[in-house]
Amino acid sequence: MGCDKTILDMSTASADAVGIRPLPNSRKIYVEGSRPDIRVPMREISQTPTSSASGEIPNPPIFVYDCSGPYTDPRAEIDIHRGLPALRAAWIAERGDTEELSAPWPESGHTRASGTVPEAERFPGLRRNPLRARAGRSVSQMRYAREGVVTPEMEFVAIRENNNRRAYLDSLEAAGHPEATGMLRRQHAGESFGASIPEEITPEFVRSEIARGRAVLPANINHPESEPMIIGRYFLTKINANIGNSALGSSIREEVEKMLWAIRWGSDTIMDLSTGKHIRETREWIIRNSPAPVGTVPVYQALEKVDGKAEELTWEIFRDTLIEQAEQGVDYFTLHAGVLLRHIPLTARRMTGIVSRGGAIMARWCLAHHEENFLYTHFEEICEIMGAYDVAFSLGDGLRPGSIYDANDEAQFAELKTLGGLTEIAWKHDCQTFIEGPGHVPMHLIEENMRLQLRYCKEAPFYTLGPLTTDIAPGYDHITSGIGAAMIGWRGAAMLCYVTPKEHLGLPDKDDVKDGIITYKLAAHAADLAKGHPGAQIRDNALSRARFEFRWEDQFCLGLDPEKARAFHDKTLPGESAKRVHFCSMCGPHFCSMKISREVRDFSAARETGGEPAPETGMAAKSKEFMSAGAALYKKA
Amino acid sequence: MGCDKTILDMSTASADAVGIRPLPNSRKIYVEGSRPDIRVPMREISQTPTSSASGEIPNPPIFVYDCSGPYTDPRAEIDIHRGLPALRAAWIAERGDTEELSAPWPESGHTRASGTVPEAERFPGLRRNPLRARAGRSVSQMRYAREGVVTPEMEFVAIRENNNRRAYLDSLEAAGHPEATGMLRRQHAGESFGASIPEEITPEFVRSEIARGRAVLPANINHPESEPMIIGRYFLTKINANIGNSALGSSIREEVEKMLWAIRWGSDTIMDLSTGKHIRETREWIIRNSPAPVGTVPVYQALEKVDGKAEELTWEIFRDTLIEQAEQGVDYFTLHAGVLLRHIPLTARRMTGIVSRGGAIMARWCLAHHEENFLYTHFEEICEIMGAYDVAFSLGDGLRPGSIYDANDEAQFAELKTLGGLTEIAWKHDCQTFIEGPGHVPMHLIEENMRLQLRYCKEAPFYTLGPLTTDIAPGYDHITSGIGAAMIGWRGAAMLCYVTPKEHLGLPDKDDVKDGIITYKLAAHAADLAKGHPGAQIRDNALSRARFEFRWEDQFCLGLDPEKARAFHDKTLPGESAKRVHFCSMCGPHFCSMKISREVRDFSAARETGGEPAPETGMAAKSKEFMSAGAALYKKA
Repeated sequence: MGCDKTILDMSTASADAVGIRPLPNSRKIYVEGSRPDIRVPMREISQTPTSSASGEIPNPPIFVYDCSGPYTDPRAEIDIHRGLPALRAAWIAERGDTEELSAPWPESGHTRASGTVPEAERFPGLRRNPLRARAGRSVSQMRYAREGVVTPEMEFVAIRENNNRRAYLDSLEAAGHPEATGMLRRQHAGESFGASIPEEITPEFVRSEIARGRAVLPANINHPESEPMIIGRYFLTKINANIGNSALGSSIREEVEKMLWAIRWGSDTIMDLSTGKHIRETREWIIRNSPAPVGTVPVYQALEKVDGKAEELTWEIFRDTLIEQAEQGVDYFTLHAGVLLRHIPLTARRMTGIVSRGGAIMARWCLAHHEENFLYTHFEEICEIMGAYDVAFSLGDGLRPGSIYDANDEAQFAELKTLGGLTEIAWKHDCQTFIEGPGHVPMHLIEENMRLQLRYCKEAPFYTLGPLTTDIAPGYDHITSGIGAAMIGWRGAAMLCYVTPKEHLGLPDKDDVKDGIITYKLAAHAADLAKGHPGAQIRDNALSRARFEFRWEDQFCLGLDPEKARAFHDKTLPGESAKRVHFCSMCGPHFCSMKISREVRDFSAARETGGEPAPETGMAAKSKEFMSAGAALYKKA
Repeated sequence: MGCDKTILDMSTASADAVGIRPLPNSRKIYVEGSRPDIRVPMREISQTPTSSASGEIPNPPIFVYDCSGPYTDPRAEIDIHRGLPALRAAWIAERGDTEELSAPWPESGHTRASGTVPEAERFPGLRRNPLRARAGRSVSQMRYAREGVVTPEMEFVAIRENNNRRAYLDSLEAAGHPEATGMLRRQHAGESFGASIPEEITPEFVRSEIARGRAVLPANINHPESEPMIIGRYFLTKINANIGNSALGSSIREEVEKMLWAIRWGSDTIMDLSTGKHIRETREWIIRNSPAPVGTVPVYQALEKVDGKAEELTWEIFRDTLIEQAEQGVDYFTLHAGVLLRHIPLTARRMTGIVSRGGAIMARWCLAHHEENFLYTHFEEICEIMGAYDVAFSLGDGLRPGSIYDANDEAQFAELKTLGGLTEIAWKHDCQTFIEGPGHVPMHLIEENMRLQLRYCKEAPFYTLGPLTTDIAPGYDHITSGIGAAMIGWRGAAMLCYVTPKEHLGLPDKDDVKDGIITYKLAAHAADLAKGHPGAQIRDNALSRARFEFRWEDQFCLGLDPEKARAFHDKTLPGESAKRVHFCSMCGPHFCSMKISREVRDFSAARETGGEPAPETGMAAKSKEFMSAGAALYKKA
């Protein structure tokens, strides 16, 4: 592999080495679409066979959604200094609606914290100039969708969402696997709070959801390296990981590492929230190497350009920052356009005021000038910029509650209503749009958030931070918020922005990023199960069956974090032989319920057949015998 | 302190030293009841003052529920070899309905794994003989409650549940604290799924809830060391930690340590699930030193007595084990009396069969003999034993689902219905009873569990394990289950049995126990907030205000885990000075929204008064000005 170790060899070197290796028992496969350049990556997890009295029964591999990009493909040539291949370049070019610019937009303004980027830190790789839509065009996926065009991106997404479910079930059936029927029958129906999710996602369904604004496919034409994905409540629930430096820590290298780490563990998108040194250069490295869409909060960079003084921000500086970032390839912008002058006084009696950084900056600007938020007054101009590159709106909730006390208050919902109005304007311009949500909300107030968001914002996708369901556990806010995230995901939030254990306390490191991601992956999956997303239960079923059959390796590898599961197991029972025994250290050999339960099953079958245990046949017959006897054998208490 | 280091000085010595120290900025207080020997412990957390332009505003201490017993009281004399003082002995004696036995019940049967307990491991302390009810009496709290008697235990519990809320609010008001009114006003109303929780818990309310079976006050007369607590859905949501060794690990010392550790972090009850060596002796050490009620699964010890062969269990061996444990002071027994012969075939087509250890043992016995479960056929005799010591029934869900696939199936609900019938029999005998619940359940099927439990079991308290909301995250099942626990707690589960990160993988160590407990404490608290439990929000409010005011020490100490919060903060910003700055390393000084938000508030106030910032007055006036001007200043997009 061409992976350059000068970027990856750092303080946490061992983790980096892992970062470019496939996960255990996994291999990258590609499912081809209607044309050879649509190749959709998936992760295939192999399973060991089931041992039975009559020999070994093979277990087919299962397929899982794979966010990790080419890094986990040993056949891929990786060179962090050159960036990823431009997967979508041909699709963008063949639409014939863009033009190449002669040079990138300059980094305007004084950039206080940046200073000069040392030569060694500069991204050396990009050899192409930015693209922009031809004059007057919008190149957004929404525009194409509304014109009835199914883009290669949409087809890619449709294949990706189906997760090879049909192939898996077919292989189960072909192998005569006893679970083939059962698995389908016992997939719980789910409760999806609206129209039900189709059994099979078609490219046309993807198109129609994008056209009506109910889904977003982030796909800046200047980030052709990205693997298309979709955010909408009729698709798999997605998660986002925030990375980015602050003035107090982290280097470009560390941030690139965090991105690689985040996608390895399953982050669907990345937000680069850098506010420290070299914001532009950090972003360049991240975007060029990220197969996941990248979002930013442009006001952070704009603020750096005016030396951190919010009141010195101008529309012009901000606009230039948008263009600069759009030309780099940012896929979505968080814009706090709903923080209106009249909303600000509503926050004065709050427990924790305005906790969104962007929201606080805009509020400060509004008050200093006693003028309306320039993001609001220039919203249609912003739409034109977004459409020219296909940057999606992530309409920020600058007034989200920062404490349980402030949840669902007037300020929050006044802003949400404003965001609904802005959504309609964005849609008028064919701009893809989703809406950011809270924050800190006790469980019983979560549903109201979802209900009002759907109503005010006409079902535009909801992208929530948590919400945190209590304030009393600093150090564990990945969990306080994971609870809220699972619940709001079930109710329909399309993407969940992770929270790490360091929330409120400090800048997360790689361990924190991983903890946050795994927590949100499991929350998103719990939501998909509860929504009854077709096929979501396949992985649960496979893992549970592996567990019941003491296929320890499979139990580890089918899970979200094979390394941790194995390490936990091995702490008390290391060694290969312990991977074959029918118990673990939690209960020991005599008290393992799984073991006893299997014995119960075999015992019962043996009594039935008078000989060798024949799993899963004896009990049923016994049951019939019991029932036909009217259960009269039993003493009643 | 008299704490004996030979028990506590172990491999994890530093943690032990902490285990007998108060938490930071905390002191133990006692609220006296109607008689001087009712002294209810609480933890008082002091706060630093708020700095403002006009000087320092004091912040009164807040009070939190305290499970840690005398160990966190520096005035207490602790001697692990002697056990805790018999707090309730006088209350038990003055009721005059018990008699002292001449000797403890012998440990009957062959105890395979036990062998001889070495002298050094024997508990040396107990100088008294067990008590039993006088012939024909029941000494259960339910019996007294039904006779209209408010016991000292009930009064203790009422005081404990109120958590000194009134004192706190009074002190806020006396200090003219601006939040006094707001805190009450903005306590969210909650959604309690039934009759609402009273503003103030009275001893009479406690009595009436116990009398009607809707709450349980575990209080074995042979565990007079316990501090009374209550389990019921109109009270604070409780949590349980499972400890106990297995054949593959852990010593008596480690298990006593885990108990101390568990109550330190807030476990309301402890279950000793030992299945390894020296089961009886381990339990003796735990009970004598535990201020929290202790539960067990007696069949584990009974099985040891028959060399691990389930089919050799007899009613007599089991009954003797019950009496033996009741005389030691176990407060509740998990009994899998609902695993009926006719239910077993219902599990044959499951993904994961029977995953309850006790359930699997009973199923095996039933099949081997083709006879009905002896716990079921001897249920009334068991009731007599339970009543003679006031051991509460924890009716075990031996057929709980062990995978998402098996959730809410016929086997599970058939057993639940049986447990409902047994509850009525137990109540006929004045036996306190709660019901154990699943297990693995996807989010959308959780509510059905709660609904059916309330209906079948006539509102007897529900005590659930999780439930785990997905199977795909081994290593993180404290979180997959914390989600389900919070949700079912909100819906009415009265006690949540924790799950540690090692679930399914190995025996938890102290770190795992702590992770499990903190996760469940936050889940239980999130449930209390959502139910609108009076006063639950006080701690959230105090912590959020501390956060907003950059009172870092207070933010750490008001949280569930001050040590971790401080360590996370200090990782990037160590030292005392960083505890006074108005930012942290997550965002750095220029991007802290809390800081900007405070500036917004002050800035706005300053503009208003033309001078010094006067927090929280300017904005309101400004708001009025905006509104009276019809918001006409604003440009519309």
